Amino acid sequence: MELYFNWNAVCALKVVLCLAEKGVDWTPRHIVLGKFEQLEPGYLAINPAGVVPALVHDGHVILESSVILEYLEDAFPDFALRPAAAADRARMRWWMRQVDDIVHPSVRPISFARFVAPRAKALSEAERAAMLSRTPKKEIADLWDRAAGAPFSDEEIGRYLTSIRKVLISMEEQLRGSRWLAGDMLSLGDIAMAPYFRRFEQLGVTSLWSELPAVSSWWQQMRARPAYAALDRLRLQYAPADHPAA
Amino acid sequence: MELYFNWNAVCALKVVLCLAEKGVDWTPRHIVLGKFEQLEPGYLAINPAGVVPALVHDGHVILESSVILEYLEDAFPDFALRPAAAADRARMRWWMRQVDDIVHPSVRPISFARFVAPRAKALSEAERAAMLSRTPKKEIADLWDRAAGAPFSDEEIGRYLTSIRKVLISMEEQLRGSRWLAGDMLSLGDIAMAPYFRRFEQLGVTSLWSELPAVSSWWQQMRARPAYAALDRLRLQYAPADHPAA
Repeated sequence: MELYFNWNAVCALKVVLCLAEKGVDWTPRHIVLGKFEQLEPGYLAINPAGVVPALVHDGHVILESSVILEYLEDAFPDFALRPAAAADRARMRWWMRQVDDIVHPSVRPISFARFVAPRAKALSEAERAAMLSRTPKKEIADLWDRAAGAPFSDEEIGRYLTSIRKVLISMEEQLRGSRWLAGDMLSLGDIAMAPYFRRFEQLGVTSLWSELPAVSSWWQQMRARPAYAALDRLRLQYAPADHPAA
Repeated sequence: MELYFNWNAVCALKVVLCLAEKGVDWTPRHIVLGKFEQLEPGYLAINPAGVVPALVHDGHVILESSVILEYLEDAFPDFALRPAAAADRARMRWWMRQVDDIVHPSVRPISFARFVAPRAKALSEAERAAMLSRTPKKEIADLWDRAAGAPFSDEEIGRYLTSIRKVLISMEEQLRGSRWLAGDMLSLGDIAMAPYFRRFEQLGVTSLWSELPAVSSWWQQMRARPAYAALDRLRLQYAPADHPAA
């Protein structure tokens, strides 16, 4: 099984975390986003959307991080990360949607403003145009354009943080009544959310949950799990190659 | 089991179609969107997002149409609409994501331009402001604002149609090799897509697939199924109440 990923791409890290929890071995295929390897024809043949992750297993290409998580449950049912009861599964999937539909699109512009803007501005007009013309996802091309041109205002960043904060407040309500997001067992809902907390820490916005005790304790439990260490190992191994200029 | 729905809301119709295919009985709770019943406190207590559908079953509230579809599979496994093989399930879920991530956000502005704009313009400034302040989903509030104010340009509508067209071309490739989207059995992938074809017909954009023979034959098969007639029955029953002015 091969996983195309980047050490710091939140969606890819969901899959890494799931594989680590399940103890499933995989072959790393690191995509250096800083060199636009995700836009190379070889990778676009695997994932025409030009984003990580992509999983190749038994001759099947599985795309979309949430689809990959469910696939791993179907293909490797040992160490289950999907609850047995239908209503708990629905809760798990509802949290996965909160991640995909609210947390992801809200944190992405903040990450772009912080991490991508300097790189976007360093590209020449021609380099940027060439890269954008090869970017299949319009919303990503738009973010690059924004990051290079008009800076994100504090007010705009504030609105995104407010959206994230609302999700965290729902989490607090949920986690007051259960140890994990979908009940008493760790599930794909927790796995999907965790890499975003790692990103919140990178962005220095941990105050988002400093007054949410159940969320704080959930995050502490989450990052203390042995599987979580896989994310730090990937950083040590791949971050230098991803920043060749550093 | 109670389903809060609207006779013409595509996401709700996915669930109606799934229930009809499975032969599961349900109690209709029709939400008249034209009267903003989805923003009434009673409904917001069930679905704080202020959108349909919402399913209430065995004391559980299940939200988000794709989550509801999977829930119905988990709770009513007879007449399965989820393939057995992990890779086929992944393909099914990948199509469900294409619907949610590309088709839905592309067709929504076109529907607003066509169907909602006259209603939006008929509201007074104060009425519109009052309604918007009660709308929890920012993207929906933005669409109402757009529909009432700046009209959608042909160029903009054209871009949305192009996005939909790309999905239909992928469907054609898939359906050249299999009868249904996830293989040889009808699945939640087909169920999720079908109500959008119904909407494309309402919008008069059937030329999107007139030169795609596999897609045309898929749609013909889909609408010929006995379950599909449930959608027409709902229209006959509820459309008049939804348009009290008509």
